[in-house]
Amino acid sequence: MSDQTFRTEKDLLGSMDVPSDAYYGVQTLRAINNFKLTGVPLSHFAHLVNGLAMVKWSAAAANHKLGYLSDEKYHAIEKACQRIIKGEFHDQFQVDMIQGGAGTSTNMNANEVIANIALEEMGHKKGEYQYLHPNNDVNMAQSTNDAYPTAIRVGLLLGYDSILVSLSKLRDSFAKKGKEFSHVIKMGRTQLQDAVPMTLGQEFNAFATTMTEDLERIRVLVPDLLCEVNLGGTAIGTGINADPHYQALAVEHLARITGHKLLPATDLIEATSDMGAFVLLSGMLKRTAVKLSKICNDLRLLSSGPRTGINEINLPARQPGSSIMPGKVNPVIPEAVNQVAFTVIGNDLALTLAAEGGQLQLNVMEPLIAYKTMSSSILLIRAMDMLRELCIDGITANVEHCKNLVEHSIGLVTALNPYIGYENATRIARKALETGKGVLELVREEKLLSEEELEKILKPENMIAPHLALSDLKH
Amino acid sequence: MSDQTFRTEKDLLGSMDVPSDAYYGVQTLRAINNFKLTGVPLSHFAHLVNGLAMVKWSAAAANHKLGYLSDEKYHAIEKACQRIIKGEFHDQFQVDMIQGGAGTSTNMNANEVIANIALEEMGHKKGEYQYLHPNNDVNMAQSTNDAYPTAIRVGLLLGYDSILVSLSKLRDSFAKKGKEFSHVIKMGRTQLQDAVPMTLGQEFNAFATTMTEDLERIRVLVPDLLCEVNLGGTAIGTGINADPHYQALAVEHLARITGHKLLPATDLIEATSDMGAFVLLSGMLKRTAVKLSKICNDLRLLSSGPRTGINEINLPARQPGSSIMPGKVNPVIPEAVNQVAFTVIGNDLALTLAAEGGQLQLNVMEPLIAYKTMSSSILLIRAMDMLRELCIDGITANVEHCKNLVEHSIGLVTALNPYIGYENATRIARKALETGKGVLELVREEKLLSEEELEKILKPENMIAPHLALSDLKH
Amino acid sequence: MSDQTFRTEKDLLGSMDVPSDAYYGVQTLRAINNFKLTGVPLSHFAHLVNGLAMVKWSAAAANHKLGYLSDEKYHAIEKACQRIIKGEFHDQFQVDMIQGGAGTSTNMNANEVIANIALEEMGHKKGEYQYLHPNNDVNMAQSTNDAYPTAIRVGLLLGYDSILVSLSKLRDSFAKKGKEFSHVIKMGRTQLQDAVPMTLGQEFNAFATTMTEDLERIRVLVPDLLCEVNLGGTAIGTGINADPHYQALAVEHLARITGHKLLPATDLIEATSDMGAFVLLSGMLKRTAVKLSKICNDLRLLSSGPRTGINEINLPARQPGSSIMPGKVNPVIPEAVNQVAFTVIGNDLALTLAAEGGQLQLNVMEPLIAYKTMSSSILLIRAMDMLRELCIDGITANVEHCKNLVEHSIGLVTALNPYIGYENATRIARKALETGKGVLELVREEKLLSEEELEKILKPENMIAPHLALSDLKH
Amino acid sequence: MSDQTFRTEKDLLGSMDVPSDAYYGVQTLRAINNFKLTGVPLSHFAHLVNGLAMVKWSAAAANHKLGYLSDEKYHAIEKACQRIIKGEFHDQFQVDMIQGGAGTSTNMNANEVIANIALEEMGHKKGEYQYLHPNNDVNMAQSTNDAYPTAIRVGLLLGYDSILVSLSKLRDSFAKKGKEFSHVIKMGRTQLQDAVPMTLGQEFNAFATTMTEDLERIRVLVPDLLCEVNLGGTAIGTGINADPHYQALAVEHLARITGHKLLPATDLIEATSDMGAFVLLSGMLKRTAVKLSKICNDLRLLSSGPRTGINEINLPARQPGSSIMPGKVNPVIPEAVNQVAFTVIGNDLALTLAAEGGQLQLNVMEPLIAYKTMSSSILLIRAMDMLRELCIDGITANVEHCKNLVEHSIGLVTALNPYIGYENATRIARKALETGKGVLELVREEKLLSEEELEKILKPENMIAPHLALSDLKH
Repeated sequence: MSDQTFRTEKDLLGSMDVPSDAYYGVQTLRAINNFKLTGVPLSHFAHLVNGLAMVKWSAAAANHKLGYLSDEKYHAIEKACQRIIKGEFHDQFQVDMIQGGAGTSTNMNANEVIANIALEEMGHKKGEYQYLHPNNDVNMAQSTNDAYPTAIRVGLLLGYDSILVSLSKLRDSFAKKGKEFSHVIKMGRTQLQDAVPMTLGQEFNAFATTMTEDLERIRVLVPDLLCEVNLGGTAIGTGINADPHYQALAVEHLARITGHKLLPATDLIEATSDMGAFVLLSGMLKRTAVKLSKICNDLRLLSSGPRTGINEINLPARQPGSSIMPGKVNPVIPEAVNQVAFTVIGNDLALTLAAEGGQLQLNVMEPLIAYKTMSSSILLIRAMDMLRELCIDGITANVEHCKNLVEHSIGLVTALNPYIGYENATRIARKALETGKGVLELVREEKLLSEEELEKILKPENMIAPHLALSDLKH
Repeated sequence: MSDQTFRTEKDLLGSMDVPSDAYYGVQTLRAINNFKLTGVPLSHFAHLVNGLAMVKWSAAAANHKLGYLSDEKYHAIEKACQRIIKGEFHDQFQVDMIQGGAGTSTNMNANEVIANIALEEMGHKKGEYQYLHPNNDVNMAQSTNDAYPTAIRVGLLLGYDSILVSLSKLRDSFAKKGKEFSHVIKMGRTQLQDAVPMTLGQEFNAFATTMTEDLERIRVLVPDLLCEVNLGGTAIGTGINADPHYQALAVEHLARITGHKLLPATDLIEATSDMGAFVLLSGMLKRTAVKLSKICNDLRLLSSGPRTGINEINLPARQPGSSIMPGKVNPVIPEAVNQVAFTVIGNDLALTLAAEGGQLQLNVMEPLIAYKTMSSSILLIRAMDMLRELCIDGITANVEHCKNLVEHSIGLVTALNPYIGYENATRIARKALETGKGVLELVREEKLLSEEELEKILKPENMIAPHLALSDLKH
Repeated sequence: MSDQTFRTEKDLLGSMDVPSDAYYGVQTLRAINNFKLTGVPLSHFAHLVNGLAMVKWSAAAANHKLGYLSDEKYHAIEKACQRIIKGEFHDQFQVDMIQGGAGTSTNMNANEVIANIALEEMGHKKGEYQYLHPNNDVNMAQSTNDAYPTAIRVGLLLGYDSILVSLSKLRDSFAKKGKEFSHVIKMGRTQLQDAVPMTLGQEFNAFATTMTEDLERIRVLVPDLLCEVNLGGTAIGTGINADPHYQALAVEHLARITGHKLLPATDLIEATSDMGAFVLLSGMLKRTAVKLSKICNDLRLLSSGPRTGINEINLPARQPGSSIMPGKVNPVIPEAVNQVAFTVIGNDLALTLAAEGGQLQLNVMEPLIAYKTMSSSILLIRAMDMLRELCIDGITANVEHCKNLVEHSIGLVTALNPYIGYENATRIARKALETGKGVLELVREEKLLSEEELEKILKPENMIAPHLALSDLKH
Repeated sequence: MSDQTFRTEKDLLGSMDVPSDAYYGVQTLRAINNFKLTGVPLSHFAHLVNGLAMVKWSAAAANHKLGYLSDEKYHAIEKACQRIIKGEFHDQFQVDMIQGGAGTSTNMNANEVIANIALEEMGHKKGEYQYLHPNNDVNMAQSTNDAYPTAIRVGLLLGYDSILVSLSKLRDSFAKKGKEFSHVIKMGRTQLQDAVPMTLGQEFNAFATTMTEDLERIRVLVPDLLCEVNLGGTAIGTGINADPHYQALAVEHLARITGHKLLPATDLIEATSDMGAFVLLSGMLKRTAVKLSKICNDLRLLSSGPRTGINEINLPARQPGSSIMPGKVNPVIPEAVNQVAFTVIGNDLALTLAAEGGQLQLNVMEPLIAYKTMSSSILLIRAMDMLRELCIDGITANVEHCKNLVEHSIGLVTALNPYIGYENATRIARKALETGKGVLELVREEKLLSEEELEKILKPENMIAPHLALSDLKH
């Protein structure tokens, strides 16, 4: 490291030595030195980096079209942005995700990296900003306060497909198990107490349904929340120092290159400080987390045992469970999902505090909002993929045990209720509890119903869906 | 109280003395005795009570149509429900909002009150359940697990208009002030630092816009989230012991009498345990709370002073501010709104925990979910009405002070930036800071721009919206 | 209501008609009209009302001693405060718990009620403030900003014994069950999977231990957190307009009449705005809530079934569980405790937001902090009492079932591990799982250990505590 | 990477290829593959890694002393642990911080790394477990369920000094500024409204005081909470398969090498599943976060402006504030601290959910509890150091501006109150507001007090501390 060379750059606060091979510049370097907090740099979130490049490219395109930016400069900036979008130079986005300045350091990191790549494209050296300037050219007609939140929205939209894919695959896995287990009769439970029969297939189908609801909700809600961008508002939404035609051109270009229907915000003042879209988006991610946690709690309950728990299903073994207890296998995958869900819920709170902390014409806590939304998205994607691949797809049912539990359950009496009357049913239930006998055994002993009748009532297809008819009761 | 008389009722656990004049019965009484927690009874939430009555009426209507319930019984139940919906007997809904049993006590409270009103309609005495039974007749074809969550949804839908009305009125108040203050030039602030000029009207319009967004979002989201009801699922969603035609008839009737587009859930197993709709609904209420809190923080900042703060606006005085400090008037109304917002955020967390706590075929924490959603709704309505009536409508502007702050601000230099160049602008800004002089004063001293040019640039309509043109820069 | 009479009172904002029989005055009336939010009045929290009276009495005592307050006025104020502390006039504390003004309305409610009681003591009429004034006399040398937070601390200290009592009784109940169940051998479970044997007594003793920890922690922490009061700081902690000897005298008197070791804050500026004590206190209440929730989750798991769950214990039946499912009894009491716990956790969040929202020399969100701390305390007390009386004391064990589960469990093999070797143990475990046979059955079949050895190893006292000896292994 | 070589290891689930140079083994590898979630490996938390090594060393020492572990094996294990504690091999701790299995993977990662280092010490190759086994030897007499939570506690205790150091240095910085600014008279503000005078020194001293409170609280609370360890409880706290003398020996050794007073838990069953200590510890960290956030909010308010805000202090410039607004400098350091505080509050919530999610004899969410506690600790340390170095130490006061604000404030009238009477004071206050004149100006105009009297009253030392005397009032 002793032979590292440097170039000198300066800004309003003075000069600093920037490593010669760095594409970022003095302002990024200050930010790197100022904010040593999470250790998570911008580059951790590729979609955010790409979103920044897309915003910068679009602003440049509009400025070029309006005559503020020369052909040469524009083409160099365009090329630089395209290379970033292709995945190059991401390691140059080094500022910590938690930072003061409402994203100014992120914006300047992008401005500086793009300027230096562009300079090289133009045949100049890094740092020769007299030919193309991070602020005057790359940041032209922009403020952090419009470029940065627009980039966050673009970044989230770029990651949105992956959430849908993971949700959709997970849903399919549940649905497949729903079909596979459609003939496995088991007891349903309410309040952890024996209730009435159902199929294991119905239970897994319900998991698929609940995931489908979130899939559909996210598919519609997320683009709806994120489509309105405040690019063009500059410092506080008044568009000071911007050409009146700039906003429309820039947003149109951005919509085209992102492939998302982006619209210029109609009230730019409001759009500059409002974080409502992120609050609801995070609320939606929290909802998915809550559902995943509930499902994983159920999987852990259903696979509890093997001898002293419910033991209706088997989760695939992923690692030896214990060094001290031979043969123990634990539900480690659902347990990890629970912890991801708790993290997402905690992230939602941090984001809520950040949203509430906005003041006057800006929300200075936006970096945290970006960080938490993107972290939660990625964690959920990884957790859903892990859950599907390493757990759901390998689940098997203990069919006989499920059936035995139904037959020995007292809840079975509910199905007989309309036929033997509530009073008889209650008496039989109590007797079963006291004697340890089965409900059917007692019904047979007392000859309350013929074998034929019993068979009909207890047919799985009759117990797991509405089928009561007035004629039955006249019996 | 010594001459209070009682009737004896019994259930599976034995007999109890119920006050003679009580319309509720033994199971309600047990619940009253079991759950002495919040002190907030069901009757506190009129919409929930009405929702219960509507569900019971609809179930009875379906059972009657299918032939399971006699004309006499049906008409008595119908009449009882209608009287409750008109506002009678609400004081009979006495169970604590926090209760175990997943709402069984709430459901039984409704069953018992309706049964006893109906009995009197039929000419019988309260408690003569041989003529009409709380369980067998009023609760026919229902379980708590489908009737109760359906009633919560109906209850929330019945209260939904009031939220829209309060939001809409508050929005209008902000918009009116936006218009009133449209000519008040003031400094915008980012990161609490002087930024660039705007109008006070733009600032209040932004408040109106952000409320409009929530108004429109809630208008669409809430009915969409709540329309699917699980009535007909009975115990766990399998519809055990229900007639196959019952679900459609009951939900259709319920839709008609509530005036809301209600739909039968397609996956009743899922719908019985899933609380996702409430999680997102609460997330939306939280978003409104966050916005209100941000606005109130702004109002408190803008009215800070009068001498040592920002002092751009005056909030109407609502109470003497201090016994020790003569003449002090405090922003008490926004402060109270902040605290309501914090409560709503806390409620959202409690609800989230409750949603996550569901297990297998039921979420037993539903009573808390109902309680917190309804509390948050009512608190927000009251806070928004208070804010509008006692604060926003009476706000006045300190026009001259706002203007003076602009003229003495350094941020003004940003508007001159494109005309005198960034370098000059920075130099002037620094000089202003050091000497305490005004930016305009310095520009005039240095004759950087003619009076004519200055006048044009500093015209309010030019400073508060994009108006840069390429021709300006060629200057 | 038509014949209600009024007296006219005025303050800085003008005149209002106060009901003749009201002991509160114009400022309270304004606050009642301003803040219609929770519907929960100050009187809901008797300890807070008493705390206010104690503070006012103490301030008056100090002022009297220093010569600022005449004998006549002092004795009237003293008498008024004593009557409030005895429980009179609590219904006159009508302001909503959520209020703007940092508690000014609460302070003025106290000042006015005390003044009017005192006036009557002196032979004057309510409202004749020329003889004794709410501000000048009752509030002498105080500001809301020192009197109110001091009263909150006193109020919490007055309620503190009740928490200790409830915790202690609940602990005793658990301990009693621990003793009662000390001979019930059962399987312990980790990650919901069968682990190794223990006694049900050990399980209940652990509940007792964990409650003891909170009892001891609260006993020490709460007075330590609350002992420092800022009475004497007046408006912002500088003690402006107070006599230099006032603080010591007032706090000393307050300590005497409350019976708690109260100390004057050493940095009154800090003490005026800092809410750290409440944040940690609420964090402690949250911890107790978390523990209670965990215990109730366990109770619900252990009593799950009766046929398709764990079914090791029976909770006493408190209400019929279901109208549709005969014989069902649900764990309604623990379920209600869970919901209280979630509410306390939500309250902690609201309080945290309020604490973070303090600005400069005051935390204006104190009313919410008082409200949430006191609500959480009361809810926890009620929940603990309910849990003990209606659930824990009536729990019975299914001794035989517990024993059977141990004998059929595979986890038993862990106990044999040191004697038959890890390899044998693993093989036996796998064989047991595959064949459905018992571990002991297989060990006997293979004659891996003699009956004598088995008996010794499987002795309850040997399995539930460390007893391995080097000599065993040499076997 | 193509020439990477592997060794084969196997466990209960089969064989896997482990990279030849890896010190971890097959179980670690499984965990690395299973849990790809946060991307944050164990090695990120050096204290946790060291804690694990200390626990393993102590267990081995006890086993050696009791004769279960040979000299050779013990010395190899001891050496391996010592090398880890010195900082070697940390990169071998690769498992994700979020993991299922209640820490089994973390425990096995430690067991495997230590075993392989020890094997090399003994002259064997990595993977030759026949000579020293990760489970049988390194993990002897332990379960994850006692070794892991003990290591977390040790890890937190090892990091505890750093928190104290950062807190203490930050406190000193505030105190130094308190001294430096002790003669700067300024207006105090309550509810953001002008209140009464104080010194800027008092304000910064209050920051020092509030940090001191947390310093003292943490110094006492943290060791008290963490001192009790459950090492020796093995699987569920019954100590199954452990020698009765093992617990005392192991904990004693651990106490000695960590330098912390560690005690064996008295109720090992309770200690195995209880997370109460972490809940309160996190609550304490949250309190510090809340205080830091409040202080940073204040710093941002006090430095707001420079022309249209409060502008009493100047924060050192750390980076140019805006590319579009020349000369703008923003409070970026406090803003970043706010976001760290929000993250800590969010972490506390995630941890709370994890603590509540424990079931029966174990809390399986412990990995999240470790992760969040350690993250919050480190973030707070970094944020406090950043705040001190990059902000507090460079703060300067605008002395003249502070003084001018006092002189022009209306709040000054409060100081005159006892001398000119409340009625005069109120009249003067109103007149000042209406005319824009100063309070002193008006008092002089009306000759209400002599210059001499005014001078005495307005002496800084008289305004900023209690000094009222009965004799003054007789004036």
